[in-house]
Amino acid sequence: MSTATTRIRTGAMQALFAPRSIALVGATDKSGWSLSTFENLRTNGFRGPVHLVNPRTEVVHGRRAHRSLTDIGEAVDMAYVMVPTPAVLPVLREGAGLGIRSYVVLTAGFGETGPEGRRLEEEILAFARENQLTVLGPNGNGYINATEGTTPYGLPIPPPLISGPVGVVLQSGALASSILAFAQARNVGLSLLTSMGNETMVSVTDVIDYLVDDPATRVIALFLESVRRPEEFARAARRAARAGKPIVALKIGSSALASHTAQAHTGALVGDDAVVDAAFRQLGVVRVRSLEDLIITAGLLAQTGPVRGPRIAVVTPSGGACEVIADRAEQEGLELPPFATETVARLKEILPDFATVQNPLDVTGYVVVDRTLLSRALEVVADDPGVDAVMLLTDLPRLPPADLNLTLQHFAATAQRIRDARRPVIVAGNVLTDITEVGRQVQRETGFPYVVGGIEHAMTAIGAAVRWSRALGETDRTAPADKGVPPVVRGETTGLWTEHRASRLLTDNGVPVVPSTLAATEDEAVEAAAAFGYPVVLKAVAEGLGHKSDIGGVRLGLNGPEAVREAHGEVCATLRDRGLTGVGTLVQPQRSGGVELLVGVVRDPAWGLTMAVALGGIWVEVLRDSVLRLLPVDTAGIRRALGELRGARLLQGARGTEPADLDKVAEVVARIGQLAGSLGPRLESLEVNPLLVRGSEVEALDALITWN
Amino acid sequence: MSTATTRIRTGAMQALFAPRSIALVGATDKSGWSLSTFENLRTNGFRGPVHLVNPRTEVVHGRRAHRSLTDIGEAVDMAYVMVPTPAVLPVLREGAGLGIRSYVVLTAGFGETGPEGRRLEEEILAFARENQLTVLGPNGNGYINATEGTTPYGLPIPPPLISGPVGVVLQSGALASSILAFAQARNVGLSLLTSMGNETMVSVTDVIDYLVDDPATRVIALFLESVRRPEEFARAARRAARAGKPIVALKIGSSALASHTAQAHTGALVGDDAVVDAAFRQLGVVRVRSLEDLIITAGLLAQTGPVRGPRIAVVTPSGGACEVIADRAEQEGLELPPFATETVARLKEILPDFATVQNPLDVTGYVVVDRTLLSRALEVVADDPGVDAVMLLTDLPRLPPADLNLTLQHFAATAQRIRDARRPVIVAGNVLTDITEVGRQVQRETGFPYVVGGIEHAMTAIGAAVRWSRALGETDRTAPADKGVPPVVRGETTGLWTEHRASRLLTDNGVPVVPSTLAATEDEAVEAAAAFGYPVVLKAVAEGLGHKSDIGGVRLGLNGPEAVREAHGEVCATLRDRGLTGVGTLVQPQRSGGVELLVGVVRDPAWGLTMAVALGGIWVEVLRDSVLRLLPVDTAGIRRALGELRGARLLQGARGTEPADLDKVAEVVARIGQLAGSLGPRLESLEVNPLLVRGSEVEALDALITWN
Repeated sequence: MSTATTRIRTGAMQALFAPRSIALVGATDKSGWSLSTFENLRTNGFRGPVHLVNPRTEVVHGRRAHRSLTDIGEAVDMAYVMVPTPAVLPVLREGAGLGIRSYVVLTAGFGETGPEGRRLEEEILAFARENQLTVLGPNGNGYINATEGTTPYGLPIPPPLISGPVGVVLQSGALASSILAFAQARNVGLSLLTSMGNETMVSVTDVIDYLVDDPATRVIALFLESVRRPEEFARAARRAARAGKPIVALKIGSSALASHTAQAHTGALVGDDAVVDAAFRQLGVVRVRSLEDLIITAGLLAQTGPVRGPRIAVVTPSGGACEVIADRAEQEGLELPPFATETVARLKEILPDFATVQNPLDVTGYVVVDRTLLSRALEVVADDPGVDAVMLLTDLPRLPPADLNLTLQHFAATAQRIRDARRPVIVAGNVLTDITEVGRQVQRETGFPYVVGGIEHAMTAIGAAVRWSRALGETDRTAPADKGVPPVVRGETTGLWTEHRASRLLTDNGVPVVPSTLAATEDEAVEAAAAFGYPVVLKAVAEGLGHKSDIGGVRLGLNGPEAVREAHGEVCATLRDRGLTGVGTLVQPQRSGGVELLVGVVRDPAWGLTMAVALGGIWVEVLRDSVLRLLPVDTAGIRRALGELRGARLLQGARGTEPADLDKVAEVVARIGQLAGSLGPRLESLEVNPLLVRGSEVEALDALITWN
Repeated sequence: MSTATTRIRTGAMQALFAPRSIALVGATDKSGWSLSTFENLRTNGFRGPVHLVNPRTEVVHGRRAHRSLTDIGEAVDMAYVMVPTPAVLPVLREGAGLGIRSYVVLTAGFGETGPEGRRLEEEILAFARENQLTVLGPNGNGYINATEGTTPYGLPIPPPLISGPVGVVLQSGALASSILAFAQARNVGLSLLTSMGNETMVSVTDVIDYLVDDPATRVIALFLESVRRPEEFARAARRAARAGKPIVALKIGSSALASHTAQAHTGALVGDDAVVDAAFRQLGVVRVRSLEDLIITAGLLAQTGPVRGPRIAVVTPSGGACEVIADRAEQEGLELPPFATETVARLKEILPDFATVQNPLDVTGYVVVDRTLLSRALEVVADDPGVDAVMLLTDLPRLPPADLNLTLQHFAATAQRIRDARRPVIVAGNVLTDITEVGRQVQRETGFPYVVGGIEHAMTAIGAAVRWSRALGETDRTAPADKGVPPVVRGETTGLWTEHRASRLLTDNGVPVVPSTLAATEDEAVEAAAAFGYPVVLKAVAEGLGHKSDIGGVRLGLNGPEAVREAHGEVCATLRDRGLTGVGTLVQPQRSGGVELLVGVVRDPAWGLTMAVALGGIWVEVLRDSVLRLLPVDTAGIRRALGELRGARLLQGARGTEPADLDKVAEVVARIGQLAGSLGPRLESLEVNPLLVRGSEVEALDALITWN
């Protein structure tokens, strides 16, 4: 279900997440959800009144229950609704009459169960809109506003609830508990956690918008099963980027690949998941691959904000850890530059003689003798002019130490050095184990920063943080404006436009295309060939003929008039034998050498026009070596995309080919994208295959357009 | 350092790890190591006497110290040596005289510091060998024998020490503490943990051998910085495979790629790390990429043993988790087959109406109402004939529950269903958080099985377990025997053998090679060409000329006598201009079509002869698409290797080429490997490039051999 199309007003969202009084409607001792919600509100600091409503029971959860909302007899800000499915709308009706504006509906049995449920859900939406109510759910567990200690949430919240800078939005009920447990284990504080349910009215986008405005939130973490309204999502993501708040997302469903177009090769390259990848990337959304990385990465970004660059200095008490880090750094595209001479000299003064002074730095097991060694080394390394950030490997205590005060002093001193450091310091532990109560105490009392859990996940998170920071500079933070240049389009935009018409459209609109002449007779073909000079190519032309090479309709390397005459005759005969009309050939000069690209634009049903750029031949057919971009995309964006092709070296002149003029290539590809974007909603796909690149000569050799 | 070459006797290893009495030599209150070792022995159940030896202090760690080993006055099984570097050998001398056979040397300052240290270390080795002592270290923290509760180990061991089936061997001191903490957090019990130090005498291989024999150990986990003696390692790994004990290894240093040969293209494909990958794979060693996966995977394999196949049924209380699992399953090559009709029918009986009955199975949030739902569904799914194992998503409690007995009953019932299940059941939690004290209690008291930490790492571990189980069937568990067929070798085996000589060697030894004729004159070239039929290829021949195409020495597609004559003249003139001798050309029929492979054998300094098979052209030059195998490898092994090429589809007839006869290709490639293996230690590299494959026709078109 996903019927809402309008944004919820900011004030309404704020009211939803900060009620001063709450009624639990349908509260009962028989329900685990009711018990949990009540307990959660009681134990996490909600200061307002909690009213229990049950028409059939006097006492619920050991407290007097009201028979109805009306029966409460005082103003209520929010109703948390757990009544049976058919009773939900009546509750909303009663509440609306009493002036209750905010609702969380836990009750299931709506759109997720079938048409009857969907009808009920639409009734609720219509009623809510009409009466300006705000409804979260149905079929969701509610939310945890940890900043305020307001927790109308239907599953147990394991203590302690830690408030902090990460706002979490989930399209999964059951996994919210895991996220909560994991965030606690990492001592990552949450601002708000919302379990969305069916998103009948309040959508993920609305909550993102709220979190962008929420001063307590520095990072937004999403668990997404689907991006239900891509345009709204894109708008909210751009807003977050403008506010400098990273969005980290675990988007599931990568195994369900789907293709959306039949006539174009491009279809196979544009799986749903690849489009999501491209979209996230362009919007500066950090995509992670596990629940752990979702929270760990969000926690790191909340600590560091943007990281200036990929050059990391590493300070550890272990040689083994150094090598593990070096391996992972390479995979994440992080650099571990050598220390400056001055840094090396200063380190030699403080480290034992047997230490090897290099990056990553192992200060040696001598830390057992001198506990300050690590943080003194950190101080020196953070001064190095050639690094963007420092990674410090250190673990918080897991068990209460023999001398707690000594431990606190030690961590306080290190925390001070970290604060004083000239570069951002990222603290990571060796392995991913919980931060226990004593660890939390150390962080609380000494201001010791976030500790990323384990080298493995830390490197993933640092890599993501560096890429996000770089993307922040590259991302268009505003929705791209329509260029508004009307294209030149000749003929009726329906069905399939094969090479001849498609090429003319390209030519008319500034995309370079190999010259060609349409020949109806052998004489015309020979005349055209002579004009171009030999060798030439002949291609079959007929009404609606898309895949001409499948029927032998492409004749290459014709070296003289006789060859042209014969080829034309054969091709036309074949076409006529198949009962085709509009039969003829297209004569073109034969090109040789160069690198072939495929440039295809298809309309993704969710995200809109999407462009794939691939290297031709085996690269695309066997390796699926392609990059995707949502349109519009500018020349600089295409330039970066070309660099991401696995076979990019081929364009740079590997194997003896002439290096391509990448600026020129990007310009032509961008022009194709721009043209596709200007062709209106009837365009289904536009494919240039191949686009031949020979140095700075770039031209389309064939093209195909489908209109819906 | 790595001077030992002989295996330590089994009895000696057993004595090292199970002493009845221990002397701590160099014990002092001033050393953290001394304090930790003493505390460890005191608190983890060591029952024998612990003697403290310090020549200068009467009381150490609150106990009376002895002035020397001699001063102890009773039999000592093992000395744990912490004295200054120069005092180590005197301690061994004194101990040897007293009949002490086992030593752990914590003291550093040996080979790791330079030549003087290396000399001292060699003295110790020589003395130990001469006197039949067993020395672990130096520069290592000792070991933890958790089975026996014997813990002569120099760093703190956080309580509780959990004994169990995983034997850990580490080439890193500092990371041992992390491994220990992480294993404890996963409730993975250890049999033995050994911190190797410099491996002067006792090597990783010796400890592997011990663990293979140790009845308490079911899985061996290794942290390796380098494989110091590959042949010994291979022998020990094969022994472990024969015993059915998986070896899981985190081998670091993947970022330090190195190539070993100059003349052959193959060099670039054979980085140190790629060879390790190939070797581990062939030996059935499971390679993991993080400290977490090392312990998690070892713990899983200890629980399951071999897993029959990749078909996994999944039972969860969460739809979100199902999709996360599906995404990761695809990446790990695991299958999630649809349930059998019977299974679906039975599940429909027990699940709520709104549940969707499919694999992966979400039994729905109704588990909040009916706690038995998950394990009843498990029971049904485990009967499905189409699955090899069942993954059950469930978390242990993290905090003491309100009603502990009820919780214990619930987990006991589930544990019973897991034991009764017809298929192995793998239990996994959603996220990687610690198993806390109450979780350990549940496992201890109910026999609840190992819980893999988090979906992310669980899928990695299950994927590894399935691959290991399959490899167990494919791996040669015995060292391959020398085939003993002496090759036919004509000429002196030195320097570079270019195409003519290399091809003759191949032909002489049963590798099909394109026919060719050596031509000294233009007439001879024309005569040879006429005999083959046109078109032909001419290739430059001269003494020591390796890269003939670089100087235009390969002429393709010569269509008649004049072309041949001209080409021969030009090529020879070029060669003579360069002052080369033995000038001429090699005439060959021109082949067309087909797929080109590169088959290269190089001698890796550590692992010996290694074969790379790659697809030619851009595949190898740009994509580095190649597979590696250590020699010897049989035809079936080559057949599997071909299937691992990213471009494997090309051999199956993608892009309209004739599908290759893969058995024939494997036979020829295996023959090349066998020949290389028979050529003796002077062979440095043998490269066939290309090996042309056209259907069932397979022939070498060019070859190069280097001898050292």
